[in-house]
Amino acid sequence: MTRASKHTFARTFLRKALDEIPLTRAMQIVLRDYDGDRLSLSAPLAPNVNDKGCAFGGSLASLLTLAGWGLVVLKLKALDLDCDIYVQDSTIRYLAPLWTDLIAHAELAGGESWDAFAATLGARGRARLRLTCRAPLAEGGDACTLDARFVAIMRKADDAG
Amino acid sequence: MTRASKHTFARTFLRKALDEIPLTRAMQIVLRDYDGDRLSLSAPLAPNVNDKGCAFGGSLASLLTLAGWGLVVLKLKALDLDCDIYVQDSTIRYLAPLWTDLIAHAELAGGESWDAFAATLGARGRARLRLTCRAPLAEGGDACTLDARFVAIMRKADDAG
Repeated sequence: MTRASKHTFARTFLRKALDEIPLTRAMQIVLRDYDGDRLSLSAPLAPNVNDKGCAFGGSLASLLTLAGWGLVVLKLKALDLDCDIYVQDSTIRYLAPLWTDLIAHAELAGGESWDAFAATLGARGRARLRLTCRAPLAEGGDACTLDARFVAIMRKADDAG
Repeated sequence: MTRASKHTFARTFLRKALDEIPLTRAMQIVLRDYDGDRLSLSAPLAPNVNDKGCAFGGSLASLLTLAGWGLVVLKLKALDLDCDIYVQDSTIRYLAPLWTDLIAHAELAGGESWDAFAATLGARGRARLRLTCRAPLAEGGDACTLDARFVAIMRKADDAG
C-alpha cells in the first residue's frame, strides 16, 4: 500500500471503531496521519479545555492512549490477525500546558518489534507490546508523553469449538 | 464541619470547577462522597463505554485523575490556601473490565501527609503530593488503580507586586 492508501484505510477503519466510543465523539477526535509505522490523531482545543483554558489532562491521556491503541489495531488488521486489544498499564508525564489543538503521535517504544509481537501472537495466542506516545507543543518539545503497554489476544476462529 | 456539611461544601465548590471542563459534562461526572480525607466521584456507564461495551480507559483515567485533583483542591480550600493545582505524572493499571457505572475514590498515598504538604507550601510556595486513586468493581477488587503526583503552587496575593 502507498502512504495515501494506508491513510485512507486507517481513516475508514478507525472511524468505525472510534465512533463506537461516545467520548471520542465528544472530544471530536480525527485521524491526522498514518504511514504504517506512526499513527497521529488530533482533536480541537475547545471541547478539551480544563478550568484554566488549556488542554484537559484527561483529554490528553485519552487521546494518547487511543493513538497507541489505534496503531496496534491497524498493524494487526494489516497482518490479518483477528485480536482483541487492551491497554494494560501506562505512565503519563505532563510537561507543559498546551494552549493549541491536541495532537497525539504513537509509535513503537525502543527495543520493541512488530515481527516479534506477531510471532508471539501466532505461537501463544497473546502478546504484549510497549508503545511511546507524545503530544507535541507548537513551539517544539512535548506537552506530555505516555508510555503504554498493550496486550493483544487472538479471537477464536470457531467460538463454538 | 460535620461529614454532611463537608459533602455539601464539596458538591457546591467542585461543581463549579468541574462545570468549566466540557469533558466532565460529557462524562456526566457527579460528586459521590467527601468525608474530609477521601473524595469519591462517579459517572454513569452509558456516556463512558468503549467499543466493547465496558468502561472506556480514557474515561477511567479522567475520572481517577479528577478525583485526585478534586481532593487536593478541597483540602487546600479548607486550609484557606489559594493555589493552582496540576497533575504532574501518573501511572494507571487496568486490572479488569468494568461493566457498571464508574466510581473513583482518591486518598493520600502511603507515607504522605497533608500537614507536611501544607508546611512545604507555606515555606516554599510550592509542594508535591502523591495520591492513590482506584475504581472499584461491584463484585470486589478494582477495575483499575492510579498513582498520581500533584503539584500545588501558591497564587501571589498581589499579582501586580
